[in-house]
Amino acid sequence: MPTIEKLSINTATTKTQFDLPQAIKSYAAAGVHGIAPWRDLVQATGPAETRRLLDGEGMTVSGLCRGGMFPAADAAGRQAAIDDNRRAIDEAAAIGAACLVLVCGSLPRGSKDIDGARTMVEDGIGAVLEEARDKNVPLAIEPLHPMYAGDRNCVNTLHQALDICDRLDPNREGGLGVAIDVYHVWWDPELVPQIRRTGKQRLLAFHICDWLIPTRDLLTDRGMMGDGVIDIPAIRAEIEAQGYLGLNEVEIFSSEDWWLRPGDIVVQTCVQRHATMV
Amino acid sequence: MPTIEKLSINTATTKTQFDLPQAIKSYAAAGVHGIAPWRDLVQATGPAETRRLLDGEGMTVSGLCRGGMFPAADAAGRQAAIDDNRRAIDEAAAIGAACLVLVCGSLPRGSKDIDGARTMVEDGIGAVLEEARDKNVPLAIEPLHPMYAGDRNCVNTLHQALDICDRLDPNREGGLGVAIDVYHVWWDPELVPQIRRTGKQRLLAFHICDWLIPTRDLLTDRGMMGDGVIDIPAIRAEIEAQGYLGLNEVEIFSSEDWWLRPGDIVVQTCVQRHATMV
Repeated sequence: MPTIEKLSINTATTKTQFDLPQAIKSYAAAGVHGIAPWRDLVQATGPAETRRLLDGEGMTVSGLCRGGMFPAADAAGRQAAIDDNRRAIDEAAAIGAACLVLVCGSLPRGSKDIDGARTMVEDGIGAVLEEARDKNVPLAIEPLHPMYAGDRNCVNTLHQALDICDRLDPNREGGLGVAIDVYHVWWDPELVPQIRRTGKQRLLAFHICDWLIPTRDLLTDRGMMGDGVIDIPAIRAEIEAQGYLGLNEVEIFSSEDWWLRPGDIVVQTCVQRHATMV
Repeated sequence: MPTIEKLSINTATTKTQFDLPQAIKSYAAAGVHGIAPWRDLVQATGPAETRRLLDGEGMTVSGLCRGGMFPAADAAGRQAAIDDNRRAIDEAAAIGAACLVLVCGSLPRGSKDIDGARTMVEDGIGAVLEEARDKNVPLAIEPLHPMYAGDRNCVNTLHQALDICDRLDPNREGGLGVAIDVYHVWWDPELVPQIRRTGKQRLLAFHICDWLIPTRDLLTDRGMMGDGVIDIPAIRAEIEAQGYLGLNEVEIFSSEDWWLRPGDIVVQTCVQRHATMV
């Protein structure tokens, strides 16, 4: 089982309880020195102040959530998305994030053309890749569960994400890879061979939580590790067999359970489950 | 756009409104002569009486829902599932169903071994395949959306379903194929090549509805054709390019919308949308 040094907590896990300064303080007090903040929190605190708070507690940033959302109905909308991703890259650089997580977006309103959306995503990533490399902020394409294919992300399998990496970075110059979240990929019959295909260079982030039976909401009913049906240790073993040296980032959206509990209890539970169920 | 002769309605679409005799009467009155009943309705009416009612209205049965649910925690449970599938094959034969749709099942309670569940599914299908062939009831493996991977079906892509067909029927003797439901597969980046791989012999059923944005429930928030984001005509064109001659079966679970409306209105809407949105 992994040690606490490998644990990171995504601020969405304590979304209702903590602002960013509170999250940093709570996580660090529990011995957790990994964090993945969302952009709205970083913007509220300010990137420079965020960096100061993070450094004060010796925090490592496993990723900034999130860039992406590239598709739009017209060229102006797509350009606005690219511009916003450039700002996200700057913010990620300012706080020393290990990567910028991309939730790529999907169908523009009224569209049924998912292939077209996929092309827009690839074009958008391509448009910001050089800047990401220049600023040393790797872009982590996060394939999202197919139940989000219509509205949040048209990149829905690791296979598909790696195909994008192959096309945009054929010579493996770096700066582009994937974030593997067990929640999104655990069901995939191709999961193991695609993790092996990923390789260390492109394995930029590893996110954990659990899939509950039943799942009562498409967005906000993720489970704490150990409460669901995902064989997390088996997936972690495959990830680490690739040489992954990054953190295990807990990201739990849970409107009816964990978001209703005291934040420090949630953090302590993350620590305990990370030590026993991951 | 397809003619009404190509339309079938799955009785789940009018689950709250009609028993089987009422469904047959309502569909036929609207000019719909295709139907796909669920087993509980057939059992309530009785297979022989069901057949008499179907013949009286000149109905074609596009499929019987459903067999499958093969995984179980112990051998006795798996044998019970196989026995139940044998009864389902008999019922399908008795009512002249074009196929028996298999929703294959998934993790036994307490299990996190989805590979093991997948093996149980394949073993279960293999155990009943000869009987299905003998009774002229093709088995249609229906890949279900990955959001059902934990509890309802561990066969989640067309690719995976066809791999099972290849292993269990390597010489294409028949009696085994797939049911393609747009709701379950529309997001799949591999959809078109896998439909082309399927071919006419293994294309046993085509189910239609739509994916709503937002989707408010994992089980019972399917949309009427045209109300969501699936490019149904594009998928139908691929299906028909394979030579598919079967019906277009409407299957809509909709606890907050269509199940609350008068059954005849639902049927008329199916007819109208089938003519304009499929």
